[in-house]
Amino acid sequence: MNWWRTDETHDPARTSWVASAQGHADFPIQNLPYGLFSREGEEEPRLGVAIGEAVLDLRACCEAGLLEAAGADACRAADANRLLALPVERRRALRRRISTLLSDPGWRGTVEGLLRDRAGCTVHVPARIGDYTDFYVGIHHATNVGRQFRPDTPLLPNYKYVPIAYHGRASSIRASGVPVRRPSGQRKPPDADEPVFGPTQRLDYELELGVWIGEGNALGTAIPITGAADHVAGFCLLNDWSARDFQAWEYQPLGPFLAKNFHSTISPWIVTAEALAPFRIAQAPRPQGDPSPLPYLWSEEDQAHGALSLVLEASLSTARMRREGVAPFRLSRGQAAAMYWTVNQMVTHHASNGCNLNPGDLLGTGTISAPGREGCGSLLELSEGGKRPLSLPTGETRAFVEDGDEISFRATAMAEGFVSIGFGECRAMVLAASS
Amino acid sequence: MNWWRTDETHDPARTSWVASAQGHADFPIQNLPYGLFSREGEEEPRLGVAIGEAVLDLRACCEAGLLEAAGADACRAADANRLLALPVERRRALRRRISTLLSDPGWRGTVEGLLRDRAGCTVHVPARIGDYTDFYVGIHHATNVGRQFRPDTPLLPNYKYVPIAYHGRASSIRASGVPVRRPSGQRKPPDADEPVFGPTQRLDYELELGVWIGEGNALGTAIPITGAADHVAGFCLLNDWSARDFQAWEYQPLGPFLAKNFHSTISPWIVTAEALAPFRIAQAPRPQGDPSPLPYLWSEEDQAHGALSLVLEASLSTARMRREGVAPFRLSRGQAAAMYWTVNQMVTHHASNGCNLNPGDLLGTGTISAPGREGCGSLLELSEGGKRPLSLPTGETRAFVEDGDEISFRATAMAEGFVSIGFGECRAMVLAASS
Repeated sequence: MNWWRTDETHDPARTSWVASAQGHADFPIQNLPYGLFSREGEEEPRLGVAIGEAVLDLRACCEAGLLEAAGADACRAADANRLLALPVERRRALRRRISTLLSDPGWRGTVEGLLRDRAGCTVHVPARIGDYTDFYVGIHHATNVGRQFRPDTPLLPNYKYVPIAYHGRASSIRASGVPVRRPSGQRKPPDADEPVFGPTQRLDYELELGVWIGEGNALGTAIPITGAADHVAGFCLLNDWSARDFQAWEYQPLGPFLAKNFHSTISPWIVTAEALAPFRIAQAPRPQGDPSPLPYLWSEEDQAHGALSLVLEASLSTARMRREGVAPFRLSRGQAAAMYWTVNQMVTHHASNGCNLNPGDLLGTGTISAPGREGCGSLLELSEGGKRPLSLPTGETRAFVEDGDEISFRATAMAEGFVSIGFGECRAMVLAASS
Repeated sequence: MNWWRTDETHDPARTSWVASAQGHADFPIQNLPYGLFSREGEEEPRLGVAIGEAVLDLRACCEAGLLEAAGADACRAADANRLLALPVERRRALRRRISTLLSDPGWRGTVEGLLRDRAGCTVHVPARIGDYTDFYVGIHHATNVGRQFRPDTPLLPNYKYVPIAYHGRASSIRASGVPVRRPSGQRKPPDADEPVFGPTQRLDYELELGVWIGEGNALGTAIPITGAADHVAGFCLLNDWSARDFQAWEYQPLGPFLAKNFHSTISPWIVTAEALAPFRIAQAPRPQGDPSPLPYLWSEEDQAHGALSLVLEASLSTARMRREGVAPFRLSRGQAAAMYWTVNQMVTHHASNGCNLNPGDLLGTGTISAPGREGCGSLLELSEGGKRPLSLPTGETRAFVEDGDEISFRATAMAEGFVSIGFGECRAMVLAASS
């Protein structure tokens, strides 16, 4: 079965005996994302599956003998790395099994006691992230930002040939909900002769998709584009917090470093590639005049099914908005399909030189901005480099993120004839810099 | 005791009862580097200490009850991460204990059976490297290379303020001896309209020091320059293999990616910060007119003791040279002190925005080129971008590294009144690209 084909687990008529799963915006029976959770007083976190407002405890399922032939060893672990490493067919078998346990009323008596209340759980970064790589496939973002850093050449000559990427920091990735400390660093005010050191004045978010790598490749071997999807285990939302003033000063010639490695926030549920099969769409044709991808990055299958029908939203809630009971302000809304390169192309390019990917590695897409102002995936773009601050319903304005602000992302996959699924929250509040 | 002070373990009069340690170029009793080794048929590697031509098996020492109060738990592990994480005082106590065991003839009867023949051991990457960061502190290298990429502005305006760095790839770091597969990738020939994909034509080595991080810092907290040395557990040699043609095409605007993440080679013995204490020297004064480091990067202690008296050498052996019995050709020889920033400044800068470092993280210095042609730490510099190939004793020439070539680095720490110590080999041969 190919990676874009659906099966009985996607059947819109399938329902769960878990009442809260019915019509759940994020976690109906058709989603079944994996996560790592703990309840108060538990030392070691355990793997679970989100279903409605509950979590199915996978270790407890193993202990009850419910997951035998379907990856039980991986489900017992204290992180998702072995689960991510499962070969595609075993991943699919596990999904079918869990879907049966949670939909077939005959299992309710056995399984109900293995559900935990999600509200009482802390959900963690699900895997040991070996390496984290951030791409730059949002061409509207690259153009919008490039224009501010390099007015004459917003898109560099390599952009339409190379899926541009850089290595990021794995150690500072945190799950949704963990507050972000405003970083200090060097910035050079435009009218100053020398840089100064202090808290960033231009803190920004970046709206991205994260990609969880499944099976790895050996060092020195490539991943052909036709096999790339087998290495993609799942997806999350990713906020690549950025200090724009540090970035402008430090990024030449080796790229971003302290401007981006102080904290990244992810939505902690791994929405599997299998769950997203119904939402596969064709990659948008390149504009007239653009070069074709080089042969190692091109396959008919990938062009036909390599994009996702996924709506991304970012919103902002200031301390004052929360105090006054004002609803979060929507910053942007756009289609994830606004990517110049597909996820499969990212994977194939990454391994094209023999670089070895490992289960639990995380790839970011880079900021995904859809065309137009409504689609902008960062404040740098929305405020045009700080020159046009946003007006909020409270009368406050924002050019960049201020202390006490909370940024939240959501994603919803939608397709005619299928039940929509969501990613859960990717949310973090900014704390004042350390004194 | 401060990090640059010596103790009885550095006493030049101290000798080991291990005969091969006497006058050993790398591993006399004054060195005692940690490594992870296995012998044929052993499944799990174990920690050891190199002494002369032998390895002291640390797990066996634990089992024999020889290391109780001095980090025994960490010494039993199957990687060096917990050993690196030990607080400085415990690291020192462990070093003193091992030095006693290997020097005091009274211990010979007990310890001799716990030595292994180093020639019969495979030595591995010693720790799980969580994150790998590569700096750019070799100012002569930055100038030499900058001139080729940007003739008008070899050193960018930030260089003398910011210890420039980027994140590298942890998964593809391998120990000395593991062959390097020539990578394929995109390059754009100067006269072509479009890039082509294929094996690199400009494969290069980069001569660097690696820094093993010891105790970490919590996310959101900085490491003051006066405390940075406590976070540096040890050193190694690092070859940051580079594909110069890929680099030139891909590096704008986010820095090097596939040009450098296909393979990095390290010398596998962790030469501890303690072992290097006698070789601490003052950081060379900055040239007249250069700015002072910003206050967060400056301490009197670091300026007085932050550099190392260490000679670095690179050599090349081609397939023909080996066939004809010709000795390896020395490519360069220079002082590691030719660094614009100290290791402590690298550590403090890295954590200055609250980025969390973890035990087992690896920092590279970036290529260390000493002044002048003899000091150049890469072929890009030695051959002036390929324009002036080197002549080898066999009559062969080299502008860049060819298949079958072996690149080898060595380092020797030297100081008046102390026994010199070495790092062991950092060596790898290049294999033809995969077809």
